[in-house]
Amino acid sequence: MPRVNRQFTLASRPVGLPKESDFKLIETPVADPGENEFVAKTLYLSVDPYMRGRMNDAESYAPAVQLGDVMVGGAVAEVMESRNSRFKAGDIVEGFIGWQEYITSDGAGYRKVDPSIAPVSTALGVLGMPGLTAYFGLLDICNPKAGETVVVSGAAGAVGSLVGQIARIKGCRVVGIAGSDDKIDWLVNELGFNAAFNYKTVKDYVAKLAELCPTGIDVYFDNVGGPITDAVFRLINTRARISICGQISQYNLDKPEMGPRLLSMLLIRQARAEGFLVFQFADRYEEGIRQMAVWIKEGRLKYRESIIEGFENTPRAFIGMLQGENTGKQLIKVL
Amino acid sequence: MPRVNRQFTLASRPVGLPKESDFKLIETPVADPGENEFVAKTLYLSVDPYMRGRMNDAESYAPAVQLGDVMVGGAVAEVMESRNSRFKAGDIVEGFIGWQEYITSDGAGYRKVDPSIAPVSTALGVLGMPGLTAYFGLLDICNPKAGETVVVSGAAGAVGSLVGQIARIKGCRVVGIAGSDDKIDWLVNELGFNAAFNYKTVKDYVAKLAELCPTGIDVYFDNVGGPITDAVFRLINTRARISICGQISQYNLDKPEMGPRLLSMLLIRQARAEGFLVFQFADRYEEGIRQMAVWIKEGRLKYRESIIEGFENTPRAFIGMLQGENTGKQLIKVL
Repeated sequence: MPRVNRQFTLASRPVGLPKESDFKLIETPVADPGENEFVAKTLYLSVDPYMRGRMNDAESYAPAVQLGDVMVGGAVAEVMESRNSRFKAGDIVEGFIGWQEYITSDGAGYRKVDPSIAPVSTALGVLGMPGLTAYFGLLDICNPKAGETVVVSGAAGAVGSLVGQIARIKGCRVVGIAGSDDKIDWLVNELGFNAAFNYKTVKDYVAKLAELCPTGIDVYFDNVGGPITDAVFRLINTRARISICGQISQYNLDKPEMGPRLLSMLLIRQARAEGFLVFQFADRYEEGIRQMAVWIKEGRLKYRESIIEGFENTPRAFIGMLQGENTGKQLIKVL
Repeated sequence: MPRVNRQFTLASRPVGLPKESDFKLIETPVADPGENEFVAKTLYLSVDPYMRGRMNDAESYAPAVQLGDVMVGGAVAEVMESRNSRFKAGDIVEGFIGWQEYITSDGAGYRKVDPSIAPVSTALGVLGMPGLTAYFGLLDICNPKAGETVVVSGAAGAVGSLVGQIARIKGCRVVGIAGSDDKIDWLVNELGFNAAFNYKTVKDYVAKLAELCPTGIDVYFDNVGGPITDAVFRLINTRARISICGQISQYNLDKPEMGPRLLSMLLIRQARAEGFLVFQFADRYEEGIRQMAVWIKEGRLKYRESIIEGFENTPRAFIGMLQGENTGKQLIKVL
């Protein structure tokens, strides 16, 4: 009897914040491995902000998911059966599996995960795409120097929480912006951010930032865009570097939002804003993973996972993540 | 009898587009040169977009001009009398003289201009600040490569007209945006731009840019900001480089204008926008001047000057320049 694969397909293109009904749970048989293929069972699924963009029928850096197709996404899986010499049963792999419980693959684009280094779920977080995004997006795009002030938005998320800690390791003063008092407490009291504030209770972002960044802002790592970013731009220093990693405040808008024009601030401050994708740094992933594994071991880099159990809860976890319900990396544990 | 110096002071802070009455013509005696000083008579005055920013009582990269102070600005002058061993009577100097007919100075910040290389007025244009702005702002900030498409706004101005030609010299496809059919004709038929359009008669900038840039936009040199820049952002290619040199469309606004948020485009395209000031490249001015002098001599770099005669016409020339009345460098010839 063939294994049954549960999958979530994109049933309709979300308008605004996605609803659970935008996704459809279907069952299909798992294909037996052909020559050079393996079958793996998903252990952890990752849900990430970028997935919202893939649900729109609009040009972006990657093609849109077509209606009826399985939703894309990274996952960690265990090889159950293999006809591929690179992978054997029991191996843990990470790759772009999508929202499904099984994958039959020739292994292209998959990497093996070493369970002896850290829990395998970290291959989707601190030792995976979010970790590398934080590492290269901060260090390569912004080149922060000791003593500089670094502001991070989305600071309690999978990427932001690592950005702030890496900036601290580099000797920077770090100020985080997040959306709950619990998150602020975590950033300041556990992760060592110098300061942080809750944008849902603070009214005047510019005044608060000016208070927390008395010497201005040298580096801004932006995960959110919108009014928070408008405020940060007001306070950037000469030759500031701004890394545009995400604009999550804009992803669920029906139509583009207008905002104050920001380019004049770049001119006045001779500052730079740069968008990036982690894939730009693909040939240096090993460097990033190795360094972060060392920092974890030394206790200098901490991470948290928000885990929801049950494959059927994937859309709910995704929607919650878009609303900031997670602290650290949002994962689904497939039982 | 002492020489009489005519000066324009800032009489009131302009609201919107400056008026001639925002400036006051006064007469003062020219100070005799003290030890180590010279007296020079202004030959050409430069009026430039950045001056509008100095008239506001707002923080910028340089201090505001105070009410009652002589307006700042670059000029070329002839030394009349000198007690400084570096300068002798008859020497031509360029420096931050301001809107006045005479200067008494110890020479700090002044450079000597060699009249044998090119007409001395070029020290305020192609072989001066605007030329260096074009040279470093394009080559260093944007690093254009042969075959890439470069778009320049404010393309018929002192800086833009040079940017386009330098990009052509580097083997790029160059598209200019300017504000009159005569300017478009000049850009395409005299300066060798591949294409150009008049933003005052074209309605749909995005459609026109898409037509003129069939492979997208790799480099954008922005002098104007506003809706033209919004349109360019829509068409940038992956890893595009955007040089923010000026935002002249915004300088006369009473209050900041709202616009579509542009940072998402930087993210989607992994693109970079960077503001700069020519002063960043001060230690390499000689390289830029030397290279552009060679290009002028070879007939590869052309320039045009819009000259208004008479010191008393300085405010009018400045106001006209802000409205795009000039083609190439706007100068005032002091009689």
